Amino acid sequence: MENIGYYNGTFAPMEQLMIPALDRGVYFGDGVYEALRVERHRFFALKEHLSRFRASLDFLRIPLAMTDEALTEILQEAASRVDSDSQQLYFQVTRGTSTRTHSFPEGVEPNLMILSRAVPLADLVEYRRVAVLPDTRWGHCNIKSLNLIPGVLAAQIAKERGCSEAVFHRDGIVSECSSSNLLMLKGGVLRTAPADERILPGVTRGHFMMLAQQLNIPVDETAFSLEEMMAADELMITSTSAHGLPVGFVDDKPVCGRDKALLRRLQMAYREFFWDSVGKD
Amino acid sequence: MENIGYYNGTFAPMEQLMIPALDRGVYFGDGVYEALRVERHRFFALKEHLSRFRASLDFLRIPLAMTDEALTEILQEAASRVDSDSQQLYFQVTRGTSTRTHSFPEGVEPNLMILSRAVPLADLVEYRRVAVLPDTRWGHCNIKSLNLIPGVLAAQIAKERGCSEAVFHRDGIVSECSSSNLLMLKGGVLRTAPADERILPGVTRGHFMMLAQQLNIPVDETAFSLEEMMAADELMITSTSAHGLPVGFVDDKPVCGRDKALLRRLQMAYREFFWDSVGKD
Repeated sequence: MENIGYYNGTFAPMEQLMIPALDRGVYFGDGVYEALRVERHRFFALKEHLSRFRASLDFLRIPLAMTDEALTEILQEAASRVDSDSQQLYFQVTRGTSTRTHSFPEGVEPNLMILSRAVPLADLVEYRRVAVLPDTRWGHCNIKSLNLIPGVLAAQIAKERGCSEAVFHRDGIVSECSSSNLLMLKGGVLRTAPADERILPGVTRGHFMMLAQQLNIPVDETAFSLEEMMAADELMITSTSAHGLPVGFVDDKPVCGRDKALLRRLQMAYREFFWDSVGKD
Repeated sequence: MENIGYYNGTFAPMEQLMIPALDRGVYFGDGVYEALRVERHRFFALKEHLSRFRASLDFLRIPLAMTDEALTEILQEAASRVDSDSQQLYFQVTRGTSTRTHSFPEGVEPNLMILSRAVPLADLVEYRRVAVLPDTRWGHCNIKSLNLIPGVLAAQIAKERGCSEAVFHRDGIVSECSSSNLLMLKGGVLRTAPADERILPGVTRGHFMMLAQQLNIPVDETAFSLEEMMAADELMITSTSAHGLPVGFVDDKPVCGRDKALLRRLQMAYREFFWDSVGKD
């Protein structure tokens, strides 16, 4: 099939998949999610994604009884139904299905939904344009929750300005992008905001930091300002499908392009790590 | 029927209502809502709710082509199907149905969902207990969006502490409750946080301020601190179903009960206004 949808035991093409209106995801966004790369029907970094997923579930106090093994089996079954060697698999768990009352309903089971389709990996060469927007999100951006209106609005504004991402800042201090992390190269150092409540601890971000250390590139987890961002040697966007996309413009101002060798070295190290990982038997 | 659900033209008991998994409300919470009282199948303050609804739609840039008249007709049809003289009618509009991409999809129509069921008005005599929690919500609490995890978690914590609501504060300054506004009486003055981006401009809150002015009770829209809250003569919770519920305890500390006459006067003025309004032909 071209894509797949899954909800509590039922598979269907995602366009035909139906869910109950009383799923608390529908009216509260009361759930959490993850998005995974699936290359040649093999998951990349599944363990890291499941670990973060459990942390998000814990924050929302959603008691998912399903084990990681049982969940993985269903995710694998979903991925196997899509005829593509390069998928992005999305899954979410909501608290349950009940009449609309804010406090937790009793005696309900969490709902599992999966969506997967072909999504190519983003090109690593082209320098991207980003927009800068104030970060007005809530105080728990480390949680991958379904409450995503700020990211939606920012992504749309970025698109309208001819940008591929929006960089968020709080009082001039850069946090991350609307659906990715932002990493800076400056003087040979890899720098990015610390993994506190202002950013999502991106799996790809973590891998870039790990690889930098292996390559003896110093890593500095200190947030940088908009001014420092404008003076960066290079900026990289990282996410599940964005493996270090270079940034060449902040709105209309040209930036970066000052350390292409180091940028390329990190990108290549990541791609090698990625393909080695999904190539494993 | 005991309750009703509606989605894009289809009516069903709410437990049986199904919606597409690709409704952007499901995975982004990309929509807005309102909740209305329906007494003897008549709407209370419909105009105010529709006006706020349009403001929320505008903020999210959701272009709902349906006129207020057409929307009202569907809401009325939904309400008429519920066999109850005292309903709470909930309706939400999401941006549309599409594959999951943050920016706005092209060529889609917004989705309208309605849920209505019998919900009694809350008792006005019993003094309630409230919990105090930090307000970690986003920067646009004036928008009635579907991103409601903070309210869900706060309501649950309040319930676990034997409280009926949670009072949010930012750095010691009270904003509002998890799904209602908080009004204070002190020295004969009605005081509540201003209608900025930190609170929802409650319809009931607005009516209490209007009635206070008619009764020559001074109104002060200045936020108060937790300390000032503890020293209040009376505190009142207002929402669509909570018409000035008195607060008697903040966690385990007794508060208020120092100006029952003024509290009662405002409650009664509101109830009279409310019943006069829904009684109109």
